[in-house]
Amino acid sequence: MKPSQSRRSKTSRIPEHTISRLSIYFRCLRSLEEEQIATISSKQFARKFGLNAAQIRKDLAYFGEFGVRGVGYDVYALREQIQKILGLTQPWPVAMVGLGNLGQALLRYHGFELSGFHIAVVFEKDKRKIAREPGIGTLFYHIDDVEEILRSSGIRIAILAVPAEDAQSVTERLVAADIDAILNFAPVTLNVPAKVKVRNVDLTIALENLAFFLTHRDHDEPFPTSSLQ
Amino acid sequence: MKPSQSRRSKTSRIPEHTISRLSIYFRCLRSLEEEQIATISSKQFARKFGLNAAQIRKDLAYFGEFGVRGVGYDVYALREQIQKILGLTQPWPVAMVGLGNLGQALLRYHGFELSGFHIAVVFEKDKRKIAREPGIGTLFYHIDDVEEILRSSGIRIAILAVPAEDAQSVTERLVAADIDAILNFAPVTLNVPAKVKVRNVDLTIALENLAFFLTHRDHDEPFPTSSLQ
Repeated sequence: MKPSQSRRSKTSRIPEHTISRLSIYFRCLRSLEEEQIATISSKQFARKFGLNAAQIRKDLAYFGEFGVRGVGYDVYALREQIQKILGLTQPWPVAMVGLGNLGQALLRYHGFELSGFHIAVVFEKDKRKIAREPGIGTLFYHIDDVEEILRSSGIRIAILAVPAEDAQSVTERLVAADIDAILNFAPVTLNVPAKVKVRNVDLTIALENLAFFLTHRDHDEPFPTSSLQ
Repeated sequence: MKPSQSRRSKTSRIPEHTISRLSIYFRCLRSLEEEQIATISSKQFARKFGLNAAQIRKDLAYFGEFGVRGVGYDVYALREQIQKILGLTQPWPVAMVGLGNLGQALLRYHGFELSGFHIAVVFEKDKRKIAREPGIGTLFYHIDDVEEILRSSGIRIAILAVPAEDAQSVTERLVAADIDAILNFAPVTLNVPAKVKVRNVDLTIALENLAFFLTHRDHDEPFPTSSLQ
């Protein structure tokens, strides 16, 4: 087996949920750093944040050896490593399409910035909505300019916050403008070439989880312990 | 072991991600019904929706025997069963707190209704925002009325769409008003009694997933195949 193939098969074994849990660990480690905690065992880490110690060790094992037996993890070093694995040591300018209520809410949501994401450009089809926006570090354009602006921008991630009926056609324009990854809020399944990665945000699934919990608790059956939210 | 204990330990083994995948299967089955497909094998089902056949069989096995070997699943029956497991055979009136951009976007988001969720009441601290809203099947109140209105309403699920700094204090009022389950959009960890279930919507994690994908693809390492989005 050639080295490149061997590396490929190793990375492709990593479950997507492991990646999401790395994001959780990243947040927890940042909060430990704020508390000036320098080392922590996987057990203490798990207890403090309501996680599963065996799962933490298993997730990290995909990426190498972390921590020292009997001592634990170096909080700073592990946070740096996870940040590197997640690709968050660089800033990520992001494009957003759609300035309805959701788009406006996302524009004012500052959680993205902690991880290096910044909504650098916004495209909208309604010119009146564009005119209304204050331009604090974000540029606003009409959707008709999407290909021209994005192709020369180096931006690779787009947030899709348009109505369901516009989602597929806007997606095709984003793909034509060299966008590689889309965070989709429209409640539709997007058709994209294999090289483009889509993550759908389906808010109803989270509500269905809560309904499951309430339904089964009513029958005296506890919900499985939550490790990941 | 008493029967109730045996049942309890069985349910508590169900991973939370299995519940989320049931929501995905539920959507797929609804779409098969629309296409008037009556039976489908787990393999065909997996191929059609980009899922994993072994995972489907494993997830369903937590809840009983579904499908007939060599024939497959009865689409209608399986959709009904999953709907029942998820607790979605009843309507779920939901309370929402916060009428900022996010709250307004959620109020106009019609994806919830397909699964029986309906935002029945909204609480907001700014009286001007309340006055502006049209009342289409939703009642609007000042946040000061939250305990009085909710306690007699039978509503058990609340959506928290308030700024981070208000999230914990509003949560305490919701818990005092007998809310059992909270969908939290504020980027903070809520402290709640053990009986209350919280699901946090962290939009940054989805973006971090995309960053991981782009980073590793750049190094010729493919991202793990996505089964769940």
